Amino acid sequence: MEMAKEPRAEVTRRAIINSAATSFIHDGYSSASLNEMCARAGVTKGAMYFHFSTKEDLARALVAVYSDKILSTLGAMPEQSGLGIESLIDWTFAASKVIATDTRAKAGARMMQEIGRRNGVSDSFMADIAKHVETHLDQAVASGDVQSEISMDLVAQNLVMQLRGLQEEAAGDAQAFKGFVQALNVWWQLALAALVPVSRRSYFYEFLRRRTDRAQAEFAG
Amino acid sequence: MEMAKEPRAEVTRRAIINSAATSFIHDGYSSASLNEMCARAGVTKGAMYFHFSTKEDLARALVAVYSDKILSTLGAMPEQSGLGIESLIDWTFAASKVIATDTRAKAGARMMQEIGRRNGVSDSFMADIAKHVETHLDQAVASGDVQSEISMDLVAQNLVMQLRGLQEEAAGDAQAFKGFVQALNVWWQLALAALVPVSRRSYFYEFLRRRTDRAQAEFAG
Repeated sequence: MEMAKEPRAEVTRRAIINSAATSFIHDGYSSASLNEMCARAGVTKGAMYFHFSTKEDLARALVAVYSDKILSTLGAMPEQSGLGIESLIDWTFAASKVIATDTRAKAGARMMQEIGRRNGVSDSFMADIAKHVETHLDQAVASGDVQSEISMDLVAQNLVMQLRGLQEEAAGDAQAFKGFVQALNVWWQLALAALVPVSRRSYFYEFLRRRTDRAQAEFAG
Repeated sequence: MEMAKEPRAEVTRRAIINSAATSFIHDGYSSASLNEMCARAGVTKGAMYFHFSTKEDLARALVAVYSDKILSTLGAMPEQSGLGIESLIDWTFAASKVIATDTRAKAGARMMQEIGRRNGVSDSFMADIAKHVETHLDQAVASGDVQSEISMDLVAQNLVMQLRGLQEEAAGDAQAFKGFVQALNVWWQLALAALVPVSRRSYFYEFLRRRTDRAQAEFAG
């Protein structure tokens, strides 16, 4: 059996994107050098301009990779499962794993900060996430896992704000990333204590502990 | 009585900084134009280069303004007052007010995101804040306002992460800023429910409600 061969232009485009990701992570948007990206990707400047007309085009492509990956992770969580809180905990760790392990997503997260604000890309991304999160929280309310005077749309917004801080952290170097899983764990501890009825709390704490341990093992490995 | 006259160079420097703040907020770091900044400040390019040799110098000066203002707001909260939680609530709203009302601080917050990561300026700023916050939380524990199995240094880190998200939000336009106070209020609701003993909780909820109302009135005005 023969593998379908990737078209040559696609191979070049991918090499450029990967090289750009490395440069943006290392140097940030304004210092990243197009010459270095071309050299590392092994392509001519002409080949690069065939695919991307400006540095901003490249950054936008990475923002799109990041945004697609995070939203598809979120879309993969079953909204009809009746597992509102569990789905949300799982998702936040899955999203953090994407940023931790995928260089292009990590670069995209950083570019989301540095250039995503233009044209409202960052705001609409955050709004999309908040909408999904709210759906899961409403489910959690319906199944009695959440009882609180705080309105769920505000809690959803707050989780998104937290993730924004995490995204900022995660886009930095590996050292800065160390506290990521721990910070997420703490937000959930606060949220569970505030939102979940006492009788169900120990179950969720145990669920969170297991997911946190798994995530920490994955990041360490 | 005669006012002490500000030296001419100082006046020029201030005009340039103010103009740069406006440009950075409007266009972001990489698109901001030095020509426009000079025109708005009413100075020649030569005068600008006397004070700042590069665009990055300008951005760094604004980061320093922002960082000084936030840290001095934090330093002004009495650490020996025995009012750990109240001091922290007050401080988070005071810090948000600085970003909301001071154009140079707002520009500095944005530049903290866009260029502050270089040379670790952003990380050491966040670490400074976390250290102060931890001191106040330790005080709160000592006075019995906080009882929790969650370690206070992790809660401090989480608040800082939240503030990082808020800083990111606040550095955007006024529209994005609208949810700022509300998001802070929700983080505190979650934290108070998780950390404060039941018997003392209603007092802190009321304290938070009053501070939130005041902040909202200030931002609206």
